[in-house]
Amino acid sequence: MTGSSGGRPLRVDAARNREAILEAAREVFAAQGTDASLEEVARCAGVGIATLYRRFPTRDDLVAAAFAPKMAAYAQAAAAAVAEADAWEGFSGYVRTVCAMQACDAGFADVVALTFPGTRALDRQLRKATAGVNGVIERAKADGALRQDFVMEDLVLVLLANAGVVNATSRHAPDAWERFVAYLLDAFRAPGRSQLPEPVSATRLAAAVRRQARVRRPDGPSGRTGHERVPR
Amino acid sequence: MTGSSGGRPLRVDAARNREAILEAAREVFAAQGTDASLEEVARCAGVGIATLYRRFPTRDDLVAAAFAPKMAAYAQAAAAAVAEADAWEGFSGYVRTVCAMQACDAGFADVVALTFPGTRALDRQLRKATAGVNGVIERAKADGALRQDFVMEDLVLVLLANAGVVNATSRHAPDAWERFVAYLLDAFRAPGRSQLPEPVSATRLAAAVRRQARVRRPDGPSGRTGHERVPR
Repeated sequence: MTGSSGGRPLRVDAARNREAILEAAREVFAAQGTDASLEEVARCAGVGIATLYRRFPTRDDLVAAAFAPKMAAYAQAAAAAVAEADAWEGFSGYVRTVCAMQACDAGFADVVALTFPGTRALDRQLRKATAGVNGVIERAKADGALRQDFVMEDLVLVLLANAGVVNATSRHAPDAWERFVAYLLDAFRAPGRSQLPEPVSATRLAAAVRRQARVRRPDGPSGRTGHERVPR
Repeated sequence: MTGSSGGRPLRVDAARNREAILEAAREVFAAQGTDASLEEVARCAGVGIATLYRRFPTRDDLVAAAFAPKMAAYAQAAAAAVAEADAWEGFSGYVRTVCAMQACDAGFADVVALTFPGTRALDRQLRKATAGVNGVIERAKADGALRQDFVMEDLVLVLLANAGVVNATSRHAPDAWERFVAYLLDAFRAPGRSQLPEPVSATRLAAAVRRQARVRRPDGPSGRTGHERVPR
């Protein structure tokens, strides 16, 4: 449909196709989650499925490229938290910002909650953001604002739980997550009120989340068609 | 396969078919959620799909009958909470029990979190349990153990959030929900540490949860086959 023509260099069309595919992917993934049909993405972009696969050989490649700007915003939230003068404001502002990003974007909720870690290209970005967040957590603990038994892995629980709230309430009660997150932040305040069960090990949590991401894409990029999807 | 034969009254076979269908439904729903294929339920029960539809004309009928014992347990948890001598133990024990029930059973997680309210027969049971829980909440508030701004609708947020945690972690980190729920109970302890955003109105929350249940079953009981389902 947008093949090379009229003497324009091929790479111009290729770049335009690439942008059209990424824009369509963001829209389709945001509406349906990252397990949406790639055929539908190609259709919305006005390209053939073969063109899509040429540009993005795997679903992960497409997800990573489509959400690169969002992931940059995620990393930026961590950087802003580090820069915040008050340690608790830094920590709580970060939790609220990331949960707000989940609430705005079904696709992003999936990316953060389900492929954390999982998608190689996003992993690199996430690791960078994660390093920043670790600093925010340690500073809030040292300041006496964040309970001492809070661990980084608890943030993954926050994202998984918030995804559960957001997925159910996004249409009819779109601000439900704000009250939920306010409760959680109260729970994280020092001093802790009760002895918590042991934290989940990072390894087990990563396996859990990776498996979930895999289960949701059982056949890789080509195994799905547009009409088999169960909307959530 | 189990048709009337050998002079046995038809109702004996009918009752046996019914039990086989319910047992298969519990297994399939627990493994795949309540939007699983009814053809698969029939197959596992060793009956034809026509027999299943004769016994259970709608998916809701089957869900309600399959989970009636679980719903009785849910009502029982509320009754036990009312009977608990200590008001906070009653409240926190109830929250832990219901979240533990979600964690044990993917199908039950769906029933409580997504069709609350939604399925008529389950609704009656849920309303009964809910009346009991309301007493537990009010007693814990009067006792000064539960923060005054806690409302019944917050329990729905707990179930939606816990479903998010449980669905992601059930295989590799099956006790992750325990730490998550311990955090929430700390958040619910009186006095509240921060001013919360307004609670979500019961009407909006019900609409949200009803819609989600509907979206997950877009075509009613006969619109799905066994192979289109996206595992979660």
